[in-house]
Amino acid sequence: MILRLVLVEPRYEGNVGSVARAMLNFGFQELVLVNPCPIEDFGRAMASHAGELLARARTVSSLEEATRGADLVVGTTGKRLENVDRHLRLHLRVPFLTPQELKEKLAGKEGEVALLLGREDIGLTNSELMACDMVVIIPTSQGYPVMNISHAAAVLLYELGQVEGGKTRLASGNSLQILLDRTRSMLVEAGYPAHKVEYTLLMFRRLLGRAELTEREARTLLGVVKSLCWKINHGPSCSKGAEAAERTD
Amino acid sequence: MILRLVLVEPRYEGNVGSVARAMLNFGFQELVLVNPCPIEDFGRAMASHAGELLARARTVSSLEEATRGADLVVGTTGKRLENVDRHLRLHLRVPFLTPQELKEKLAGKEGEVALLLGREDIGLTNSELMACDMVVIIPTSQGYPVMNISHAAAVLLYELGQVEGGKTRLASGNSLQILLDRTRSMLVEAGYPAHKVEYTLLMFRRLLGRAELTEREARTLLGVVKSLCWKINHGPSCSKGAEAAERTD
Repeated sequence: MILRLVLVEPRYEGNVGSVARAMLNFGFQELVLVNPCPIEDFGRAMASHAGELLARARTVSSLEEATRGADLVVGTTGKRLENVDRHLRLHLRVPFLTPQELKEKLAGKEGEVALLLGREDIGLTNSELMACDMVVIIPTSQGYPVMNISHAAAVLLYELGQVEGGKTRLASGNSLQILLDRTRSMLVEAGYPAHKVEYTLLMFRRLLGRAELTEREARTLLGVVKSLCWKINHGPSCSKGAEAAERTD
Repeated sequence: MILRLVLVEPRYEGNVGSVARAMLNFGFQELVLVNPCPIEDFGRAMASHAGELLARARTVSSLEEATRGADLVVGTTGKRLENVDRHLRLHLRVPFLTPQELKEKLAGKEGEVALLLGREDIGLTNSELMACDMVVIIPTSQGYPVMNISHAAAVLLYELGQVEGGKTRLASGNSLQILLDRTRSMLVEAGYPAHKVEYTLLMFRRLLGRAELTEREARTLLGVVKSLCWKINHGPSCSKGAEAAERTD
């Protein structure tokens, strides 16, 4: 597993430097900054021996750019698990995990994971969380759940530093996107209610994220969608083309 | 389980403040500082909403004073587990645990644990580690194992914040001390080689720490030592007093 840590609009250079240090402590290298504050002397001092990692950090101007190419996008939020209300859970349709559960989910997988940490004050927005495949919540105290972001990073990287590697290739972000695009076309062609299409696709995406879809499974699903599309377009009496589509799997 | 966090000679007020914040994040309250640097505006700023906890922190001038009354003293070191050489392990005679193993050891126990974090540069000295019942090592990267102390605190408190409470009363520090003092007298009275006495007592202490001795077991052991002492002092033909001593258990 390759980990990419994404800081979304960090406001204090000291935190960015501290996060870089924690990354190196747990053996991670790839840091991406979305619209960060300027990183100057204090940030570099807090990075300590991770100055080179900090200097190599990639600066981008959108979350989309930061997560491009990642196979799995994991968000974080400071809200307590029991406090995440049912409405928000339904709305986000994201599995909520503890850091330890995330470690267990990623064990034995091969692929690139983008882990997002939000702003010091407001964290990640709901729309940013909606762009994630999973959300991690650190189990904190009810009284004062708001952690310093470099502390949150240290806890998460501590768990992820212990993930055992493996050969099970996660479905690539690209395969997943093709699968979802084809599914959208299929729903449209099948006359599925237009106002429900995007909502249902989001549900599919969550479901596939939660299932840690492998590349092989993504290809099989794509074959299924293709053969369904063929049938939808050619009618019930026609079977030759459908069989041909199935053989592409 | 009650946790007391002890910072031994911290040099940067920002770290002390950050540690206070991490404590409150995970629901802990008791902070003790051994010969700390002055805590001023920056330290208080880093504590954020944990200012009150920081203001209540107890300042002492020795480790002995800081750990007094604790049932279990746990040290921390930045050395990697596989790098702790055999000689040091033998010398310290302390079980080395990961934070997760410590969490598992403390599950279901009742008692007060003092968790020690050392200086930013050199950590805890070997003689300070020798005063501990256990030592925790955070599994970090070989390349750069030295964590910021507030990050180390966050990782440890994250694990310990998840310890499930319980009713099994750990042997009190006081009971353990009485047991060791009586054992020392017993060894001396039994003619055990004088130069081995303290070394053997250290081994006993480690062993009892590793075993998470309960209060009930400490009392039973004290009864055993008493009856052995009686026998040593009264000779093989005398049995009445030994039986009386056993009945005190």
